[in-house]
Amino acid sequence: MSESVKETKAKPTVMSGFPEWLPEIKILENQILQIIRTNYELFGFVPIETPAVERIETLTSKGGNEKEIYSLSRLAAEEGADPTTEFALHFDLTVPLARYVAQHYSGLVFPFRRYQIQKVWRGERPQSGRFREFYQCDIDVIGDGELSLMTDAEIPSIIFRIFKKMKIGHFVIRINNRKILQGLFLHYGLKDKEIISVMRIIDKLEKIGTKRVFEEIKSITSMPDEKINELIDFISMEYTNNDILAKLELMKFNDLFIQGAQELISVFRAVKALGVPDEYLAIDIRIARGLDYYTGTIYETVLLDYPGIGSICSGGRYDNLASHFTDKKLPGVGISIGITRLLSRLIEAKILQPESATVADVLVTVMDEKKLSDYLALATTLREEGINTEVYLETSPFKAQMKYANRKKFKYVIIAGEDEFAKNCFIVKNMITGDQKIGKIPEVIEIIKQNK
Amino acid sequence: MSESVKETKAKPTVMSGFPEWLPEIKILENQILQIIRTNYELFGFVPIETPAVERIETLTSKGGNEKEIYSLSRLAAEEGADPTTEFALHFDLTVPLARYVAQHYSGLVFPFRRYQIQKVWRGERPQSGRFREFYQCDIDVIGDGELSLMTDAEIPSIIFRIFKKMKIGHFVIRINNRKILQGLFLHYGLKDKEIISVMRIIDKLEKIGTKRVFEEIKSITSMPDEKINELIDFISMEYTNNDILAKLELMKFNDLFIQGAQELISVFRAVKALGVPDEYLAIDIRIARGLDYYTGTIYETVLLDYPGIGSICSGGRYDNLASHFTDKKLPGVGISIGITRLLSRLIEAKILQPESATVADVLVTVMDEKKLSDYLALATTLREEGINTEVYLETSPFKAQMKYANRKKFKYVIIAGEDEFAKNCFIVKNMITGDQKIGKIPEVIEIIKQNK
Repeated sequence: MSESVKETKAKPTVMSGFPEWLPEIKILENQILQIIRTNYELFGFVPIETPAVERIETLTSKGGNEKEIYSLSRLAAEEGADPTTEFALHFDLTVPLARYVAQHYSGLVFPFRRYQIQKVWRGERPQSGRFREFYQCDIDVIGDGELSLMTDAEIPSIIFRIFKKMKIGHFVIRINNRKILQGLFLHYGLKDKEIISVMRIIDKLEKIGTKRVFEEIKSITSMPDEKINELIDFISMEYTNNDILAKLELMKFNDLFIQGAQELISVFRAVKALGVPDEYLAIDIRIARGLDYYTGTIYETVLLDYPGIGSICSGGRYDNLASHFTDKKLPGVGISIGITRLLSRLIEAKILQPESATVADVLVTVMDEKKLSDYLALATTLREEGINTEVYLETSPFKAQMKYANRKKFKYVIIAGEDEFAKNCFIVKNMITGDQKIGKIPEVIEIIKQNK
Repeated sequence: MSESVKETKAKPTVMSGFPEWLPEIKILENQILQIIRTNYELFGFVPIETPAVERIETLTSKGGNEKEIYSLSRLAAEEGADPTTEFALHFDLTVPLARYVAQHYSGLVFPFRRYQIQKVWRGERPQSGRFREFYQCDIDVIGDGELSLMTDAEIPSIIFRIFKKMKIGHFVIRINNRKILQGLFLHYGLKDKEIISVMRIIDKLEKIGTKRVFEEIKSITSMPDEKINELIDFISMEYTNNDILAKLELMKFNDLFIQGAQELISVFRAVKALGVPDEYLAIDIRIARGLDYYTGTIYETVLLDYPGIGSICSGGRYDNLASHFTDKKLPGVGISIGITRLLSRLIEAKILQPESATVADVLVTVMDEKKLSDYLALATTLREEGINTEVYLETSPFKAQMKYANRKKFKYVIIAGEDEFAKNCFIVKNMITGDQKIGKIPEVIEIIKQNK
């Protein structure tokens, strides 16, 4: 026997921080993406898609973190040509939206209601639940000059439907209005820069607790201790939604505060009119969101049984989307669901579990190869009925076929041999219960469709 | 009045060769992607998704063109750190599939039937119909050690369903088997290298004509003129599918040829058993496909009325998917639909036209702002019925609302004022025919659903 020299094979790996799922999890991810897409469209949001890359200059204009941006070069270029490009992968979908709206302004109808489900890339240090490549599922409504406050009320209604449908336990959509916090801080004598800093501190309240919030506010402002405590007490109030709104309505600190309170009340009422039950809503004047550009309504969504997962969906209202590109005032409101991180956390926490490694409703097993055309014709009949059907095409013993069905977690298999084709009757086996039924094609179709 | 200094605004642009559609075209693209996805799943293909990037070493292993590969660098790195990475954007979905199957081998069930719909990137010189970023929609079935020839028969059946559903006119799926061509060339005394070269020339037959094919073959082989002519005559035969198959069966040039002919006959019969009508199939022994790794069945699909568009979907059978990574023999068969180029060509040729700039079935106009909660509740009722519903939330005159509906090409609008709410009767206006109907909610729902 000759000795064969074994070739050294390359090790197949993906880049760290770039998630890649087995089919059973990708199926789950697709189901979630489909729920999101369906509900975005239920409210008349239209899809857009922007290229994966934008000009570097565009990406850094909104303060994108340069260390996290991946730029593109040609691996090899024509002789003498510069392989670097002016382009880089986008790190969110908001900057591309701003560029898109400015670029296609005349081709769009305003208010422009768009959804965008795409991957984004951030060169972060990879760690559990942080990815360098992940899906964002964004909706935004952009007005031309102005945008009705009622748009702000639609957003929680969409969030509600999506997470309700995802069956991930009880969640709460927290709503606030930044004007309330700003008005409040003005009332306490804080100035512009202090307001932004205090807002960031307040936003951490839940995470770091009142004691540290007190200390941090004390360290950057000249507020007297009792005023800081009063402020913290005020924003920490835990009442029912209606009680908080009633209180806010009474406190007429200044115009900004009053406007914020009125906006919040209007939005809350409209959210209720849109059918969101009270127990899924929490008026919470603590939430501020880190980003500077929010100017009104703010949203955050948390899973009550799994607070550790953090906000699973957040966003808000902003005054001007595309000032980098245009003089036109384009106010908007939107949210983003970061589905990659959410999915990985939900699986970790066993809130979601993959159910099957197939999208097929049924496997047609093949016992008699000579009758292959009959099996194929049977599969075609099922497919005509919209039943996702796989035929076992390898020449394996029946036992191996059943093992295949079990490993992929098929719900049904169809078993048929010479007799069955002669009688035009087929055995449908439910792989979960073990039940077997025999029926003609219409019955077979009905059994499978019932459990789709 | 003070003079204001106008800020210079950045020009919003995308990178050349990176397509970006207005919503009405993106809606069309999504409809096409949905047809493809649905039909892939109808045959039990499971989704996978690989990261946008792979190791450069992986991408170049299969002979990827380095000039077309975009590599990634961090725009800025920590001090002293190298901003370049070992990674680059993938240029197809086959190389990532090979890496995926090798990496996740033990977690997969074979035959592994996967579909993958993702963008790929190629730094080509942009020109009409050539993009640097585009969608590929791939299916492949990968066997572990072996893979039934019957799998080859499923592929044309899927292609048939997809393009039939897309309503893009008459198309033909051309099928060949490379072994026939290889056997034929062996019969004419050609050697290994010549075989590949002649295969490439033959593949251009339709484009460059018999005369140039003759010249090119003559220039690289020592075949006598009459043999070249005989060869060209043979492969150009235009008969019915059954006649060609009958002819092939008679010609027993050598084992390879005979095997190829038998495979082609078996595949063709099974494709018919799967319900594909003869007029959508063309046995065509001219087609060879450029890529070296095909070893058996080969597919190409053309639109008969628009041959200029070229092959809209192609693929074939290969012996070994992942030899770069593993010693395991992983034969496969697959196809790829390049949907971005196809969509842009179909629109150019006016075969497909965008129908609407909205995905909503109906626009609820608002005539009486005081009743906003009633409008919102009405929208909620419609959405509960699965009707995609948009409410016009701005405070614009009715005329402006109708203009909005027309510009976005809504099919229906609902009109309701105080009277209508009092009677719980609503006006449904068909924006295409101009017809108006008045009805209670169940009737409204029925009217809209009928035309969904």
